[in-house]
Amino acid sequence: MEKEQETLYAWKKRVGQELDSVVAFWMKHSHDLEHGGFFTCLGRDGQVYDRLKYVWLQGRQVWMYCRLYRNFERFHRTDLLDAAKAGGEFLLRYARVAPPSKKCAFVLTQDGCPVKVQRTIFSECFYTMAMNELWRVTGEMRYQNEAVEMMDQIVHWVREDPAGLGRPQLSGTPATEPMAVPMMLLSLVEQLGEADKELASKYLELGDWCAQRILQHVQRDGQVVLENVSEDGKELPGCLGRHQNPGHALEAGWFLLQHAIRKSDPKLRAYIIDKFLLLPFHSGWDPEHGGLFYFQDADDLCPTQLEWDMKLWWPHSEAMIAFLMGYSDSGDPALLHLFYQVAEYTFCQFRDPEFGEWFGYLNREGKVALTIKGGPFKGCFHVPRCLAMCEQMLDALLGRLE
Amino acid sequence: MEKEQETLYAWKKRVGQELDSVVAFWMKHSHDLEHGGFFTCLGRDGQVYDRLKYVWLQGRQVWMYCRLYRNFERFHRTDLLDAAKAGGEFLLRYARVAPPSKKCAFVLTQDGCPVKVQRTIFSECFYTMAMNELWRVTGEMRYQNEAVEMMDQIVHWVREDPAGLGRPQLSGTPATEPMAVPMMLLSLVEQLGEADKELASKYLELGDWCAQRILQHVQRDGQVVLENVSEDGKELPGCLGRHQNPGHALEAGWFLLQHAIRKSDPKLRAYIIDKFLLLPFHSGWDPEHGGLFYFQDADDLCPTQLEWDMKLWWPHSEAMIAFLMGYSDSGDPALLHLFYQVAEYTFCQFRDPEFGEWFGYLNREGKVALTIKGGPFKGCFHVPRCLAMCEQMLDALLGRLE
Repeated sequence: MEKEQETLYAWKKRVGQELDSVVAFWMKHSHDLEHGGFFTCLGRDGQVYDRLKYVWLQGRQVWMYCRLYRNFERFHRTDLLDAAKAGGEFLLRYARVAPPSKKCAFVLTQDGCPVKVQRTIFSECFYTMAMNELWRVTGEMRYQNEAVEMMDQIVHWVREDPAGLGRPQLSGTPATEPMAVPMMLLSLVEQLGEADKELASKYLELGDWCAQRILQHVQRDGQVVLENVSEDGKELPGCLGRHQNPGHALEAGWFLLQHAIRKSDPKLRAYIIDKFLLLPFHSGWDPEHGGLFYFQDADDLCPTQLEWDMKLWWPHSEAMIAFLMGYSDSGDPALLHLFYQVAEYTFCQFRDPEFGEWFGYLNREGKVALTIKGGPFKGCFHVPRCLAMCEQMLDALLGRLE
Repeated sequence: MEKEQETLYAWKKRVGQELDSVVAFWMKHSHDLEHGGFFTCLGRDGQVYDRLKYVWLQGRQVWMYCRLYRNFERFHRTDLLDAAKAGGEFLLRYARVAPPSKKCAFVLTQDGCPVKVQRTIFSECFYTMAMNELWRVTGEMRYQNEAVEMMDQIVHWVREDPAGLGRPQLSGTPATEPMAVPMMLLSLVEQLGEADKELASKYLELGDWCAQRILQHVQRDGQVVLENVSEDGKELPGCLGRHQNPGHALEAGWFLLQHAIRKSDPKLRAYIIDKFLLLPFHSGWDPEHGGLFYFQDADDLCPTQLEWDMKLWWPHSEAMIAFLMGYSDSGDPALLHLFYQVAEYTFCQFRDPEFGEWFGYLNREGKVALTIKGGPFKGCFHVPRCLAMCEQMLDALLGRLE
């Protein structure tokens, strides 16, 4: 017992120090003092190598700063709040391509002109997360109104009519559900419903629908989690149907665990641990070099994505959250040991003690393949979210042991 | 002299045998006898792992088969011609998404329903190449009419009005010219003008325009070839502007060499050899492990593409063609030695003596990263085109020595 407590305490300390260092990196290098918002294309030492602003990453960084401000005494700092607000104003002013339409750009120039638009819901989802958190830390209703109106639009696109997203309907395209869509919506249900009875009740049915849709991605008699299934929950033909992303399944796992906790449903929890934590880990962990593969094929064929065997930072951050949450919730020591295994690999391979933050992209053998600290898809999000959530969970576990 | 002749002869034999083996691989595994056209998603041993039909690769395989039928006695075979015609009929029937519009799909189901449409000109370009070759081998005017009408449409999209491609105009998107566009058009000018005085004269000005546009991609006082420049030939900001693709520059090199030969312009030829052959080779060849990097950044920063340091088959095929053509045309022995260097690396690393054809994707160290022989972007094109052109060039060189 004392040994367990010591190990948990050591990890809490390690995780907390790493969170400080990571937040300091983004505070120092990413703020655009001229236009508001954040540079995310940062080299190893933090140097800005491109000034484009990716809307996903703008929304995520606003969200992250607010969360830290709200939940950690040591981050309850004016500089964090001011940067979050400046990021929020940048989004309010520039994210939408052609207001009053709610469609947001995928990437903007430094001064807010749209460069690319994706025909998906994700920019809008991160916009919503940012606005809801800004409301929570400032109390200003204009943020919350933005969040709720955008949420309504997203739900309309997903459940009623996707026409506003601009995707052409083609006769050869099967009606596909990427797991990311119900996952993203489920995390928004969690976000908007936090300590808000009215919205929690408004989105109660939506949350159940999302969970049921995610569970449909368990296929082949429970043997695999597939990234894409048909809208009625069947396996799709070809590579699209066989596509697997172990880190994404693990992320879905902890989203679902939160849902099961809200529902007080231990049977569902056990199923989630089995299918969304243990299954993707055992199929996705590289027995030779350690780390999670990025993509796999359910028939063990070679994936067609060039980066399939690379080790990316975010699947490992998500796995750390998933296993620690699984352990916190179930008490199963096997899950704690998996947390230690993943966390040890992750801290050894991805951290950059010299310049701070984590490398994002390693080759199969664990060698750094890209030295960048941020880019079009890596910003101030997965790493600090993982560290902040793990610190809180480790704290709670230690509290229980005392 | 005798030594040179021996080495050239040995390579001609090696290249010719490899061409036989590669063509046999596609003949055996890729034909869709039910619907016409070709499967290109083939595993290491030729097994079909996905039945989707990528329009680029359909057009390219038709083109390749016709070229072989037309230029090589040993490939003047009915089975090759029949497969090419069946592929051509598949394209005629299904490639266009909504006739009479000429916009073609990017990928179709096995039976020809559109799955995805790209907002670029490339499906249409490979369609044109296929139709022109089918006319050359069959004499049927309906193929040539298709080719010329599609060519007119492509030129209209590129030089007059891109609206038909469906790209939204956004205020933050700089007017960018990817080098692929004038390259592709220049190769169509070469294709349609072959032994056809009328079309050669029709496209004379277009060919000059393409060459001039490609030459605009030489930037920074002749020190780099950039993949994307502004429409008036200036470097663009950020990663987009600094993006380099050494294999693509080498491919542009041999397209331009053909243009310089048509123009009988030895000054242009020397410039091309310097800027499009030697420069990308010297910057792009990995001094540590050999092989050409896939992508580079002109400021030597880390590219953001995960696959930047991988070694792909096609840059090496293109480099083989470029150096052998450069040598054939200039007589500079340094270029012949570079041909040998690239060819030796390529034959050792990419060939699969066990199952035939080449692996497409190696990691930086030269280890096979993807075992597939074909996929969404690799079909019956770069490898056999390289081998066929090299065999012909080696033949001509040996003929000169006799």
